[in-house]
Amino acid sequence: MVLKKKFGIIGGDLRQIYVAEKLRRDGNKVEICGFDSTKKCHPNLKISSLSKVVSSSDYIIFPVPVSRDEAHINAPFSAMPILIDESLASMLKNKVVFGGIISPLMERVKHSEVCLNDYYNREDIMVLNAVPTAEGAVKLVLEESICTISGSNFLVVGYGRIGKVLAKLLKNMGARVTVSSRNFKEIAWAKIENFEIVNLSTINCSLKFDMVFNTVPAPIFNCENLSLFDPKPLIIELASPPGGISKDLAKKFDIKVIPAPGLPGKYFPQTAGEIIAKTIYKIIQEENL
Amino acid sequence: MVLKKKFGIIGGDLRQIYVAEKLRRDGNKVEICGFDSTKKCHPNLKISSLSKVVSSSDYIIFPVPVSRDEAHINAPFSAMPILIDESLASMLKNKVVFGGIISPLMERVKHSEVCLNDYYNREDIMVLNAVPTAEGAVKLVLEESICTISGSNFLVVGYGRIGKVLAKLLKNMGARVTVSSRNFKEIAWAKIENFEIVNLSTINCSLKFDMVFNTVPAPIFNCENLSLFDPKPLIIELASPPGGISKDLAKKFDIKVIPAPGLPGKYFPQTAGEIIAKTIYKIIQEENL
Amino acid sequence: MVLKKKFGIIGGDLRQIYVAEKLRRDGNKVEICGFDSTKKCHPNLKISSLSKVVSSSDYIIFPVPVSRDEAHINAPFSAMPILIDESLASMLKNKVVFGGIISPLMERVKHSEVCLNDYYNREDIMVLNAVPTAEGAVKLVLEESICTISGSNFLVVGYGRIGKVLAKLLKNMGARVTVSSRNFKEIAWAKIENFEIVNLSTINCSLKFDMVFNTVPAPIFNCENLSLFDPKPLIIELASPPGGISKDLAKKFDIKVIPAPGLPGKYFPQTAGEIIAKTIYKIIQEENL
Amino acid sequence: MVLKKKFGIIGGDLRQIYVAEKLRRDGNKVEICGFDSTKKCHPNLKISSLSKVVSSSDYIIFPVPVSRDEAHINAPFSAMPILIDESLASMLKNKVVFGGIISPLMERVKHSEVCLNDYYNREDIMVLNAVPTAEGAVKLVLEESICTISGSNFLVVGYGRIGKVLAKLLKNMGARVTVSSRNFKEIAWAKIENFEIVNLSTINCSLKFDMVFNTVPAPIFNCENLSLFDPKPLIIELASPPGGISKDLAKKFDIKVIPAPGLPGKYFPQTAGEIIAKTIYKIIQEENL
Repeated sequence: MVLKKKFGIIGGDLRQIYVAEKLRRDGNKVEICGFDSTKKCHPNLKISSLSKVVSSSDYIIFPVPVSRDEAHINAPFSAMPILIDESLASMLKNKVVFGGIISPLMERVKHSEVCLNDYYNREDIMVLNAVPTAEGAVKLVLEESICTISGSNFLVVGYGRIGKVLAKLLKNMGARVTVSSRNFKEIAWAKIENFEIVNLSTINCSLKFDMVFNTVPAPIFNCENLSLFDPKPLIIELASPPGGISKDLAKKFDIKVIPAPGLPGKYFPQTAGEIIAKTIYKIIQEENL
Repeated sequence: MVLKKKFGIIGGDLRQIYVAEKLRRDGNKVEICGFDSTKKCHPNLKISSLSKVVSSSDYIIFPVPVSRDEAHINAPFSAMPILIDESLASMLKNKVVFGGIISPLMERVKHSEVCLNDYYNREDIMVLNAVPTAEGAVKLVLEESICTISGSNFLVVGYGRIGKVLAKLLKNMGARVTVSSRNFKEIAWAKIENFEIVNLSTINCSLKFDMVFNTVPAPIFNCENLSLFDPKPLIIELASPPGGISKDLAKKFDIKVIPAPGLPGKYFPQTAGEIIAKTIYKIIQEENL
Repeated sequence: MVLKKKFGIIGGDLRQIYVAEKLRRDGNKVEICGFDSTKKCHPNLKISSLSKVVSSSDYIIFPVPVSRDEAHINAPFSAMPILIDESLASMLKNKVVFGGIISPLMERVKHSEVCLNDYYNREDIMVLNAVPTAEGAVKLVLEESICTISGSNFLVVGYGRIGKVLAKLLKNMGARVTVSSRNFKEIAWAKIENFEIVNLSTINCSLKFDMVFNTVPAPIFNCENLSLFDPKPLIIELASPPGGISKDLAKKFDIKVIPAPGLPGKYFPQTAGEIIAKTIYKIIQEENL
Repeated sequence: MVLKKKFGIIGGDLRQIYVAEKLRRDGNKVEICGFDSTKKCHPNLKISSLSKVVSSSDYIIFPVPVSRDEAHINAPFSAMPILIDESLASMLKNKVVFGGIISPLMERVKHSEVCLNDYYNREDIMVLNAVPTAEGAVKLVLEESICTISGSNFLVVGYGRIGKVLAKLLKNMGARVTVSSRNFKEIAWAKIENFEIVNLSTINCSLKFDMVFNTVPAPIFNCENLSLFDPKPLIIELASPPGGISKDLAKKFDIKVIPAPGLPGKYFPQTAGEIIAKTIYKIIQEENL
């Protein structure tokens, strides 16, 4: 999709550099700001000041999350903080603005004529991100384990987007994968993929899981079901907080929990950035922006 | 799941015999009626009269669809027609009754104290049935084609339950599979499975599809997009009527359309029957029947 | 690969028509004979007399097997028998001749200056043919069974070319596949594909195989190991005679054996013909013919 | 397989600790020496002196390679060097001895009555090791790349044991994989797996490979074919020296080459050790040792 538009990228981590780089490679005009303290910035990208980036662009792209403190743009590579204030709001007037988790920005610009779009609360980007999340989990396993994934015995808890993609990836790599879910639709899908299904509350101690991957953002592990695991497995926590197991419980059962948030951006910034760029294209096309 | 219950199976095709046989094998007491004109009835099953089947059972199972004419139970293997009348309704009083597409029955029994359950309008049975549907489509292809599926070039139109399962099965058998869908969530799922995606309205004539599988129950093919196919492909019509292409259009473009309704029951009656039996177990468990 | 050569196709079944048709489509000049009693001959193919086909061609292609009686060319669609005699031998002088299982022809032409090539005794064509053989076995299963392949429990005996391709295909279709082999290299390959491995002489009766596929051309089944199977499975015999089980043994154990020879030519003549054509191209290139 | 034998493990890296641990877990008596300078030694293993290990064992297991300098046992975790001398040779008299690449040992013990077995020159161990090698390559890729494997474009050079397993693993993870081989049997196998096949000498510059995996232990890359690659890819060198590309050539074409020898032992010592233990069981069984 060739747009030949003017994009401004403001703040964010390595992913946003790859958003910018993909937009540029596709033939768009791109300026960026908020990357002055990193050397990883792509040499072809044009760095400008905040006001210049905004004034010379039709489309402004903020990172995901837009802010970590509700006051500043999330810009870890920026030497100077970028305030979310009236000045920014007025600069953005009449621009088409994109961001992920946009509520902090929304408050400030609601009185201005800003077309504000959240590229992160869409089903499609969450599906596409399941792939780098699952591969990131594989990377974690390969770093933690002294055994191959092929032949290992894994439990995937939850069979939504990430559970589906991860269970299939591990199986395709030769692992024996068991799935646990309480949702009867998800169970039907897991069954037709020929996964073994278990109920956490009746885990058989003959199932000796090498690792457990949790994708359910709820305290799904408790004393009862944890006591059924023998040996106590390593848990890779893929769900956002509170996650599936509390620190206290993990300590009580001497279970090692590896928190694994934000794997796409952390391990595969280029893939994650390109997914964001494609989603922005999609929004522009759908909304005729 | 051992229930040790009394089941009565009334009418239906070969599938219902396998529903009965699975229930019996699982340790339940089973009587059947409506199978007096077939020799395929399993030797271990007890055949009784309608009234005896009903009176000696706690759970009554009708076929899918319950009726084809709104007046009689769908019972192709019954020598005598089984009327859906007041007499049947009163016999069913206080029974737990199961059927697929139950509206004809519902009318009659609505004033009686009958616990009527539709086992066919559930997401899980539709997901489970996608497997025999997809394998049935593979059987059709193997009967129609003088080429192997491996190396063939297929288009799957629609990427819902059946589209997902079929596209993956054909790919797993070595085919090159392209997917077409207008639903952006479905497209995201097809992308992460690395299928090529096409828009029917911009089909490239360089894509020489050996066969097209339609899963969309809407007239998705029209003069415009059909004129883009070269050569004109064989269409396997998996969607329920009206299906994706009208007879007139198919004739105009000299396209062979193979209607393929009801593949699970037609080709895999044992698998289809066991799926029904498991779904009935599920309902009994969920509803505490 | 464009050769722009003159090919003559003499005798054979439907496969040879697809050999001819592929050669023609690739831009070569093709004449055929021995297909006067079939209507399935492709309309674009030029039919000539035996002498005309030979005289106007540089490359002569006989079928596989070249002969079934050592006296005539195997030509089931020919109204007239084609004798393998001195006359044929002298016609072939100075021609490049291809055939499958060529010994009957070899005897006759050994004193003539004929460049005789067997396209069927090569490792590559046998590997390529494993795919239509395995898919043909799948077609047989789908015709025989009232259950889907997904979820079925199969044993593949032998893990050579056909065993490897078949076991993988069945697994990719969702079956549970166990492999039996006595060759330690084959066992290592089966292990890394995560197949369960069994020794026929210690088959556990808890393994309830729905079907057994034999690919070993030796009497591998005997009273001892057959008595271990419970229930007695259906055997699909893919090995060439004598196959894995004698008629007497099958009768004694009341085991149904489905002989399945020559599946590529029988079920997928176009794929099988194109494999032959490509192999002939390969020989021409390798041998600079 | 329960042997209840006495094993002595002498020297080697982490793998040998897992050989020992597997033997012990299987119910054998195990003593080890040569691991006094590592803390990774499994707490259940009994550490003894060289002479005690040998005298109290029936089976002696040396590492792979047995020696790196032809003079000492390869024992990186030993505080003291273990000499391959007459003393060792005489201690081993009447023992069953195993090692990988045993020539240095063979020289010394040839006059003694030692039953010396090489567990590393067998087809089956090499097949089994292809899995940790391929997964190790995946680990390398995940460490090097900022893109997911899914969607990446890889070339696998050589389609022997490692090429076959690696190409399939990368494809199963969603990569687009092209295979290059000069062996016509390997090409047939790659074709039926539906890999794209290329000839290195006619690489099309439209194939933009993200990485190239070399498995051919011969200088297969040269000025001619390297000049065809655009962009210049990263090469993961899986072949043993000399490998596929010289340092000079890599420098000339500014190609980054990542040497990747011994991945099973390096990344997956437990899997690699268990493969060795199973192979030793196999030899004991085959040879009735």
